[in-house]
Amino acid sequence: MPKPNVKEQIVATSLNLLHSKGFNATSVQDITDAAGVPKGSFYNHFASKDALGLEVLRRYAEQAAELGEVLHNTALPPLARLQQYFEALIAANAENDFNCGCLLGNFSTELSNQIPAARQALHKEFADWTEMMAGLIAEGQRTGNISAGQPALEMANFIVDSWQGAVLRSKAEQSQAPLDRFLHTVLTRILR
Amino acid sequence: MPKPNVKEQIVATSLNLLHSKGFNATSVQDITDAAGVPKGSFYNHFASKDALGLEVLRRYAEQAAELGEVLHNTALPPLARLQQYFEALIAANAENDFNCGCLLGNFSTELSNQIPAARQALHKEFADWTEMMAGLIAEGQRTGNISAGQPALEMANFIVDSWQGAVLRSKAEQSQAPLDRFLHTVLTRILR
Repeated sequence: MPKPNVKEQIVATSLNLLHSKGFNATSVQDITDAAGVPKGSFYNHFASKDALGLEVLRRYAEQAAELGEVLHNTALPPLARLQQYFEALIAANAENDFNCGCLLGNFSTELSNQIPAARQALHKEFADWTEMMAGLIAEGQRTGNISAGQPALEMANFIVDSWQGAVLRSKAEQSQAPLDRFLHTVLTRILR
Repeated sequence: MPKPNVKEQIVATSLNLLHSKGFNATSVQDITDAAGVPKGSFYNHFASKDALGLEVLRRYAEQAAELGEVLHNTALPPLARLQQYFEALIAANAENDFNCGCLLGNFSTELSNQIPAARQALHKEFADWTEMMAGLIAEGQRTGNISAGQPALEMANFIVDSWQGAVLRSKAEQSQAPLDRFLHTVLTRILR
């Protein structure tokens, strides 16, 4: 019988390793060594390294959703919620010294071609993320709190994509500047 | 004596492989097999796979610079040049069926932490790219052809970062839509 805590240990360790080093630069041996579990136990819990990658993506998306709770804070107008949300994302990148990027973005570049199920999973995560944001933008547009210069879903998609690019550049240069530039431009030129 | 045509064969083959499959998913054996050269010949020409990666990045940047020639076409106003430039980049992504992304972006996510010299090289390529674009934006701002809503260099950096994000999403979803959305938003909300 596989032990559930071994599986959890593998997922938690893999989330850190795959986020910081990447999928293809991390071997199953790296993971089991770092998790302190026997290499043979890996395949009791995962059919393949690809299957683990998908599990890690789900876990990452769950954790990222917690940062999105501020988006539901109805005490604040939509624009202020979006600002606080991206400030929290910037702080999360600062915690990693701007060295890890976003796992969705990393997997998009590394695994879209390599693992067909990863492409499907990424498509869904991006769609969920943008739809949540589009709902809030539409709310702000109705009250005049957010610019009506573009349809809400188009604006949300542009903002999510631009965030991914800002995170990528932030990782390339290990710098917060691209993230601050993103937020300033989005707040002053896109959302207003 | 290393044969120069073997080196060229390795670089040209590697550019395709590293762009489509990624750096860590491609072995030296994959490269020498695809190039049709003996595996042993690789190390006559490159000190390491990392050194090859840097050479491939230089070659990619040289080829990308050719697409930038339209930016110097003084018969067109700056905004029209920028539009034609990004249309050419979108066409180049379409040629790859939106499957490869931008090598600068791919290496940013995959190699920034792994190869310190890659981070330095990426920093320089991004700086050269944005400075070229900032010069053209500043020219458009002087004549009123481009919005003066932001300093030219900040605008150029935001546009380059957002392009990277759009390409990443385009690769994740194998779709042109993020690239068209990028261009429409940048032309109508950022540059005007």
